[in-house]
Amino acid sequence: MNNLGKNKKLLLAKYPNGLAELDDFISEEVEVPNIVDNELLIQSHYVGVDAALRLIVRDSDEFLFRVQPGDIIHANIAGEVIASNNKDFEVGDFVTGALGVQSLSISNGEGLEKCDPSLSPLGSWLGGFGVSGLTAYFALFDECKPQPGETVLVTGAAGAVGSMAGQFAKLAGAKVIGTTSSKEKCDWLVNELGYDVAINYKDENWYEQLEAAAPDRLNIIFDNTGGSVMNESLKLIAMHGVVLLCGSTSQYYQDEMSGPSNYIWLGSMRARLQGFVIFDYAERYAEARKKISQWIDNGSLKLPEFVCDGDIEDFPSAFKKLFEGKNFGKMLLKLPAAK
Amino acid sequence: MNNLGKNKKLLLAKYPNGLAELDDFISEEVEVPNIVDNELLIQSHYVGVDAALRLIVRDSDEFLFRVQPGDIIHANIAGEVIASNNKDFEVGDFVTGALGVQSLSISNGEGLEKCDPSLSPLGSWLGGFGVSGLTAYFALFDECKPQPGETVLVTGAAGAVGSMAGQFAKLAGAKVIGTTSSKEKCDWLVNELGYDVAINYKDENWYEQLEAAAPDRLNIIFDNTGGSVMNESLKLIAMHGVVLLCGSTSQYYQDEMSGPSNYIWLGSMRARLQGFVIFDYAERYAEARKKISQWIDNGSLKLPEFVCDGDIEDFPSAFKKLFEGKNFGKMLLKLPAAK
Repeated sequence: MNNLGKNKKLLLAKYPNGLAELDDFISEEVEVPNIVDNELLIQSHYVGVDAALRLIVRDSDEFLFRVQPGDIIHANIAGEVIASNNKDFEVGDFVTGALGVQSLSISNGEGLEKCDPSLSPLGSWLGGFGVSGLTAYFALFDECKPQPGETVLVTGAAGAVGSMAGQFAKLAGAKVIGTTSSKEKCDWLVNELGYDVAINYKDENWYEQLEAAAPDRLNIIFDNTGGSVMNESLKLIAMHGVVLLCGSTSQYYQDEMSGPSNYIWLGSMRARLQGFVIFDYAERYAEARKKISQWIDNGSLKLPEFVCDGDIEDFPSAFKKLFEGKNFGKMLLKLPAAK
Repeated sequence: MNNLGKNKKLLLAKYPNGLAELDDFISEEVEVPNIVDNELLIQSHYVGVDAALRLIVRDSDEFLFRVQPGDIIHANIAGEVIASNNKDFEVGDFVTGALGVQSLSISNGEGLEKCDPSLSPLGSWLGGFGVSGLTAYFALFDECKPQPGETVLVTGAAGAVGSMAGQFAKLAGAKVIGTTSSKEKCDWLVNELGYDVAINYKDENWYEQLEAAAPDRLNIIFDNTGGSVMNESLKLIAMHGVVLLCGSTSQYYQDEMSGPSNYIWLGSMRARLQGFVIFDYAERYAEARKKISQWIDNGSLKLPEFVCDGDIEDFPSAFKKLFEGKNFGKMLLKLPAAK
């Protein structure tokens, strides 16, 4: 036994029905075993609150990766190494990894990434300087390849990835339109992040607003939401356009997911719906972070974060807020251990 | 006035409801005006019976190209020049073009393509040697790029394009699976066209058959049908796979088209749904036809045709048969003028 106290961890209590509710989760405290050879112990500082979790906790055997009742809730965390029998990690190192929603994690180092908080604050390594920003960077620049003067639509524009993708598209010289769920977030997208146009998809005439904002049609649809916003937008796809399939947050919690019935527009427009997974670009993260750092330094890029202070048991309410659209940028749960 | 007799033409009587019925069309006979400078007169020999017509006659203003009640029915025809005031065409030339369902057409030559029946019989210039075969050729080789040993699924495999796409995929060394609507067509695909596996999608266990036939998943889905067959198949798409969007025949006649709800599989598999239009390849038709001729000559390719003898007023019943799945390969209406 060690003297670190107990590990708080969050488990799936039952499969959610629709939007996840607080009682779909259950927290517990367990003893932390001593680390053995090659292992290290990590104290969590930040937990990334990601919409994709809702897909992973579906009561469905269709997807390869899933969390079932009794399993720990999947999440990326950023934390500090507080004990190590692993030659690659020292006490005091900062790391990120998919260690789940818990305060203390034991790891053999596999899949962990070291973070240098002097490059960017620790929490941002889960957000704009981490998987969210890197996703936006490679999905946009390598898969969509925006050109100056082109028109880019970002759905879920105020989200973790969308808030980065829109800024990157502006840096590429594109006209950038975003859809989001409130007037307040629309104002934020335009005033803080430099979106050219932001549209509240809850407005009855949102599609007419989009049509008016895109007289030359949409060269790129950077889609984080799926659902009717993506589907209607397909009618405006430009010749040889790209619909980048980054996420489908509007569908993850539906009993029956719905597909984009307007997909036949892709045909006549020689366009494509492109899947993407960030891990394929793992060897180029450093290159992207160098660019991101330069843009931050010269004031042309922000790393939007929406930080919820709390402990492990506060994760469910943060997750609920995410699907209520409360966040401006990356949602992070900041644990007591974080400075 | 000339002494050619009258032109029989087929018009849309009213927008079809569901599958098109015979009385959605109406034929009429009109005088043929004399051709003026630069014009030529074409006698139709073959009419291509194409599923895409059902999309064009939808009661919807969503699509740019449409046929409305009172308009001539859109179709590609192959015929003979019987009078010409155009220096580029002589009497006796054979041509194809989108001249509509009528026995005599006046044209200024624009959009017409000359056919050499010594290269391939005239009817085939609408089918395997024409737009259907060229579509299969460029969509498969240029957009999907099948590699030896890969697995290719062709939906609507016995159709005009599908029957060519499957043969091309075999020539590329792929394992080829086709879906179609009857046991008889399954046998034909395997025995006549060399498909490795053919599946009747009306079988209750068709998906299990597909899963069993594709243990290494599907590198290419060459989709002619859309609907549930395409949607279910998406669950088997391989890493970096391509879903080539060639047609959506199952959707053209639906009041509400449905989209592929399994599209999110494209995400995790880094796959893409790719739109395609044959006209982009117009400058390379000769190159493709040279290859096609070589394969025909060495016995490794067939140009499957399903010929209905009849006159202009028989087009509606041929079109109905098409959606009933009666055709093996390209459906052609062979008019009395054809030898």
